Amino acid sequence: MAKKKEIKKPDNKKIRIALDVMGGDYAPQEIIKGGLLASQDSELEVLLVGPEKTVKEGLERCGYSGSGVSIVNASEVIGMGDAPVLAIKTKRDSSIVVGIELLKRGEASGFVSAGNTGAVVTAATLTLGKKKGVSRPALGAIFGFPTGPILCLDIGANAECKPEMLVQFAHMGSIYMEKVFGIPQPRIGLLSNGEEETKGCKTVQKAHKMLKKAKVNFIGNVEGRDLPRGVADVLVTDGFTGNILLKTGEGIGEMLVHALRDTMKGNPRLNEAVDILTPVVASVIGMLDYTEYGGALLLGVEGNVIVGHGRSNALAIKNAITTAKREVVQGVAEAMKG
Amino acid sequence: MAKKKEIKKPDNKKIRIALDVMGGDYAPQEIIKGGLLASQDSELEVLLVGPEKTVKEGLERCGYSGSGVSIVNASEVIGMGDAPVLAIKTKRDSSIVVGIELLKRGEASGFVSAGNTGAVVTAATLTLGKKKGVSRPALGAIFGFPTGPILCLDIGANAECKPEMLVQFAHMGSIYMEKVFGIPQPRIGLLSNGEEETKGCKTVQKAHKMLKKAKVNFIGNVEGRDLPRGVADVLVTDGFTGNILLKTGEGIGEMLVHALRDTMKGNPRLNEAVDILTPVVASVIGMLDYTEYGGALLLGVEGNVIVGHGRSNALAIKNAITTAKREVVQGVAEAMKG
Repeated sequence: MAKKKEIKKPDNKKIRIALDVMGGDYAPQEIIKGGLLASQDSELEVLLVGPEKTVKEGLERCGYSGSGVSIVNASEVIGMGDAPVLAIKTKRDSSIVVGIELLKRGEASGFVSAGNTGAVVTAATLTLGKKKGVSRPALGAIFGFPTGPILCLDIGANAECKPEMLVQFAHMGSIYMEKVFGIPQPRIGLLSNGEEETKGCKTVQKAHKMLKKAKVNFIGNVEGRDLPRGVADVLVTDGFTGNILLKTGEGIGEMLVHALRDTMKGNPRLNEAVDILTPVVASVIGMLDYTEYGGALLLGVEGNVIVGHGRSNALAIKNAITTAKREVVQGVAEAMKG
Repeated sequence: MAKKKEIKKPDNKKIRIALDVMGGDYAPQEIIKGGLLASQDSELEVLLVGPEKTVKEGLERCGYSGSGVSIVNASEVIGMGDAPVLAIKTKRDSSIVVGIELLKRGEASGFVSAGNTGAVVTAATLTLGKKKGVSRPALGAIFGFPTGPILCLDIGANAECKPEMLVQFAHMGSIYMEKVFGIPQPRIGLLSNGEEETKGCKTVQKAHKMLKKAKVNFIGNVEGRDLPRGVADVLVTDGFTGNILLKTGEGIGEMLVHALRDTMKGNPRLNEAVDILTPVVASVIGMLDYTEYGGALLLGVEGNVIVGHGRSNALAIKNAITTAKREVVQGVAEAMKG
């Protein structure tokens, strides 16, 4: 039988990350597994937020040994199809609302969910509040290219952006990459359809002018093909374009894996090559997969919030928790402003 | 010595395609080579448009055998950095202006240029005129995915689009795919950051509503990751997003090739695999490379115009000419309306 721990007994020496057990395609089991993986880090305490019975059963199934995690009961679940604002208002005992409130009350330092992105963003924005100077929080994704990590934001929180919002994203991205990756004066690129200042839609053209005067290391417009070339540390874009960029990368990665697998499978002479090339292909796909860094970072709210991909497995959840921990250690939320 | 042919002796049985010899990173030599490759098709006559001396010298260097091509003198060159409208007005004897005017006068049925895209679009729009119902011509790119070809438009002619323009793109794309690829009732997808009608920026949301009522086979929003999955025959988007999509694909393709090459080079045991996998990688890259179909299609003007990639080599130019021929044979320009 799993040992029961209660939220009332905090271990203040540990960093506490609240985890939404009910969010994601493979919830609750993979999420619980991911929480247990992360809790092997002795500096971490993971709060599993979800229906107590479900969480306990999940822990038992994992052969839970009895340390590093606590359960916080939340009886309701916000589904992927739920309308965010309505769900937040009506499902007050959902794992998302309860998890965010743990952050608000200081009972956790970070929150991770692979659930309904809109609901997480809305709950965080309404409950935790926005940072000073931030019109709208943004979702950021980190791509681990061979040339170094690049933070792309917004990747979907704001389909419609005003130029000043793009400037705020630049400030937030700059702070993040400096704090978390130790990059001095991160290079900020503005995603556009050409390098020249005159390129882009009107919003991008205006943002370009504003960024030239902003207190960030603005290097100008960056094109899609420059992305894996290491020309910038932060890529600023609206949530519509950023989301399409992200998902196109995913689609291309999938296509590639299938094409290579089909060829290799069909040819027995390639047995040796399979062993060598499979990890190479995996690493290329990994570069296009922001979940390698645990998911999307919600920047601009008063707290460290990570939104995992819906398809997050245990490893992705573990990575998300590790990313949340890193944010806590580096004081990202405190440093953030638009 | 190369045999000289003059524009004055048309062979009316052949399809005449005018080729801008001075456009592209590898002009004039690769362009001339491409023209000669295409002219091996006995149904084609290629008009090489450029400074006569340069073209003749280029032909000699290729060991030109004396048939299938003609030279049309054009003494000026529009550079990649030239401002389109100004260049069109001041360089009246440029290969782009002269080539487009051959179309206008009916002395050629198609025009191919790998030069300054803005200048080609502007010259075509001003000289040939727009088709009825078309607010602004669009540039289309065809990706040859394993699931079938997909036409993506606009890929860069219009960074700022109104909803009605996106609807016109849908109509043009539908006609193209039906005419050229024989696809009955082509499936039209609208690129967005989610499948639901409520997703997307305001322009996309409005376009979605309009497309539901339009006389095209509209299948709804399509996400970036669906692109290689064969869910649509035509992908409608604004030129800003389309361009970023296109160039991101290019960048990812490059990254992939480098990663695989590096691994294969460093491992002598992979000699056999190299032979087998190189064409596979090339074919995946080819799927992301719209120049496999010869370049971008300028749709919505009164004529068949193809804009090649700046990096076009002889083969890409040959493909562009073949695509122009196909448009002529299928009567694309005549059928087109917004």
